[in-house]
Amino acid sequence: MTLLETQGLAAKHAERRLARASMSEKNRALTAIADSLIARQGEWLEANAQDLAAARDSGMRPAMLDRLALDETRIAGIAEGVRQVAALPDPVGQVVKAMVRPNGLRIEQRRVPLGVVGIIYEARPNVTVDAAALCLKAGNAVLLRGGKEAFRSNKAVIAILRDALEGVGLPRDCVALVEDTTRESAQAMMNLTEYLDVLIPRGGAGLIRSVAANARVPVIRTGEGVCHIYVHADADLDMAARILYNAKCSRPSVCNAAECVLIDRAVAEDFLPMAWAYLKNKSVTIHGDAETQGILGSGVIPATAEDWDTEYGDYQLAARVVSGFDEAVDFITAHSTGHSEAIITENYTAAQRFLDEVDAAAVYVNASTRFTDGFEFGLGAEIGISTQKLHARGPMGLEELTSTKYVVYGSGQIRE
Amino acid sequence: MTLLETQGLAAKHAERRLARASMSEKNRALTAIADSLIARQGEWLEANAQDLAAARDSGMRPAMLDRLALDETRIAGIAEGVRQVAALPDPVGQVVKAMVRPNGLRIEQRRVPLGVVGIIYEARPNVTVDAAALCLKAGNAVLLRGGKEAFRSNKAVIAILRDALEGVGLPRDCVALVEDTTRESAQAMMNLTEYLDVLIPRGGAGLIRSVAANARVPVIRTGEGVCHIYVHADADLDMAARILYNAKCSRPSVCNAAECVLIDRAVAEDFLPMAWAYLKNKSVTIHGDAETQGILGSGVIPATAEDWDTEYGDYQLAARVVSGFDEAVDFITAHSTGHSEAIITENYTAAQRFLDEVDAAAVYVNASTRFTDGFEFGLGAEIGISTQKLHARGPMGLEELTSTKYVVYGSGQIRE
Repeated sequence: MTLLETQGLAAKHAERRLARASMSEKNRALTAIADSLIARQGEWLEANAQDLAAARDSGMRPAMLDRLALDETRIAGIAEGVRQVAALPDPVGQVVKAMVRPNGLRIEQRRVPLGVVGIIYEARPNVTVDAAALCLKAGNAVLLRGGKEAFRSNKAVIAILRDALEGVGLPRDCVALVEDTTRESAQAMMNLTEYLDVLIPRGGAGLIRSVAANARVPVIRTGEGVCHIYVHADADLDMAARILYNAKCSRPSVCNAAECVLIDRAVAEDFLPMAWAYLKNKSVTIHGDAETQGILGSGVIPATAEDWDTEYGDYQLAARVVSGFDEAVDFITAHSTGHSEAIITENYTAAQRFLDEVDAAAVYVNASTRFTDGFEFGLGAEIGISTQKLHARGPMGLEELTSTKYVVYGSGQIRE
Repeated sequence: MTLLETQGLAAKHAERRLARASMSEKNRALTAIADSLIARQGEWLEANAQDLAAARDSGMRPAMLDRLALDETRIAGIAEGVRQVAALPDPVGQVVKAMVRPNGLRIEQRRVPLGVVGIIYEARPNVTVDAAALCLKAGNAVLLRGGKEAFRSNKAVIAILRDALEGVGLPRDCVALVEDTTRESAQAMMNLTEYLDVLIPRGGAGLIRSVAANARVPVIRTGEGVCHIYVHADADLDMAARILYNAKCSRPSVCNAAECVLIDRAVAEDFLPMAWAYLKNKSVTIHGDAETQGILGSGVIPATAEDWDTEYGDYQLAARVVSGFDEAVDFITAHSTGHSEAIITENYTAAQRFLDEVDAAAVYVNASTRFTDGFEFGLGAEIGISTQKLHARGPMGLEELTSTKYVVYGSGQIRE
């Protein structure tokens, strides 16, 4: 048995115990974790300082160093996040539906934990705690494989989490860190079908595509977002410009940020300069088709075929003039990653058709795509945003970390 | 582009139209299909006669020939099944939840079709129509790959289905048959990630395991059932014997049939002869552990290690004496396929613990496992019984053939 298989088996055993834990037990564990994160933050910060030093030596970019770095304020925020998860309702045991059949069988469909959840992610130590807290609350054991740059930080914090679990009488193995951070260990985790019930990759598009393409364990794809804002001929153009600016610029690195604007030809000459008046505040680079170049002038970079499928994650925006609704929807259908898509219009039929016909996790009329988020949608938490259609679609909260089982109460029934 | 890719692309296009079809349109299509199956049954029967002749020549077993064979009565039953699907409520468009957020955004979670569903199955021509009808009702296009022994039958009936769709103004490509029945085409279908949203294998355990192990398209595993009946010390033994007989013998070839009985030592000497009084009516072969052999005598075949993991699908039963509840649940945890598991007991705590602790799609107290079925559970239909935890677990009806999308009505909201 490999070390990974041993960890998988231990997680499976631990999960049997955790699945039966009461809400109070799980909340005590989460509170103990939050307390320990504060009480033992010295250990975590020291390990993080070593990771940071090594990362600086290896030439890591400042933006990445910032993601890796911890300080007292960040740890306080992470601990507070764990307390918020403790305060959420427990999805496990909820009765989704219940019925009595003609033969007297009483059947309940009840929420149960998924089992053992694998998370593959990059060098963000906060993900380690966030993901573990959500999995624990939903009764799942979790096997975490973080990026090698955060290995010391992750090892330190996982020890804190496991001690806290043990302190309240739950198995340490409810949370475990994959200690081998080679490519081979990632592939082994993707094939760990005997012990993992689901694998959730969190990180860049490259990581997610690689996991989806190579895993035999069921995967939930999250967070790829080439999101469009479609400015319809009947749009309130000022509203459209404000929404586009918000969708592009309020946080360009996230998956619900807009990457492409489509503009009906009838309003392109009016709209594009209005949009630019906002976008220039952040010096947004526009990759435009010929018509956009014609309207906005020489500052526009000519768009290439790749631009229409690029998640910039930055102050860059693709722009294209379309003949009308059908071309816009066809274009979105061809280039969308199925994350979040918005139409800006005052036209009732165009709005309803867009909501019906565009196939994405979230479709919007007259609002910024930036709202696609577990907190904004009222789920109280988020483990990721699913862009697939199976199991969960859109922001995933605690319910999406559960499965169901049918519970049948009989009194001797046999089938004819 | 391969023929399969061309079919996948055509299905994707057809699905865009079908996803917008009203319930009335879809029901008209299903009614037209049912009518055409009767009106054109001569074509289907003729093709089936050719399949049957070829199967007989190649030495197919009588039980398999029976599965392959069609006649007027069977076709009438299949057409009636399609009418029943037409009569079911349409899951598409149902609002799962709806909310108004503090910023005034109105958010609905709405059921939408899954997209293009692939079905890989064996030589049962009725599956072709059943699966197509359920997929169409849920707004999904479907790509069917049946066994090569039923190829002529499937080709004939798919032509009837496609003509009926066209007759009511829906695209023919909502239903398509994979014409290449080689192993390579099955593998190509498992990798058709660009066009297939989900793949559902229907058939024997070998087929399902092979698809689950080799597919890159998301798979729903169905129908593997090593189901246990656990006779607890506090069972009503006569009820237990009747339930065991029903679970084993009412239809031994199906996945919800029992394959193994566990008996508490305290009641084994009383129970086993009572059970045998029923089971001998079907000359059930018992594969027993040493204690079962000691009680029932020389007619019992000594169980081997494989017996505890075998889905006999026949009048054969594994039997084992256990020390009590914990050993029984541990044994089920080790050997269950997660389908259906039952305890027979009058003890309240044992019953509740079994329901909580046994991890399966359906868990029973004092009833036969044979009830795990979409019709028996009130779903009105069934495309299969999922034994996995993601997306759907247990009998899958029309709702389980859908996904959801978030629909967001704004009035200019931007995110702070």
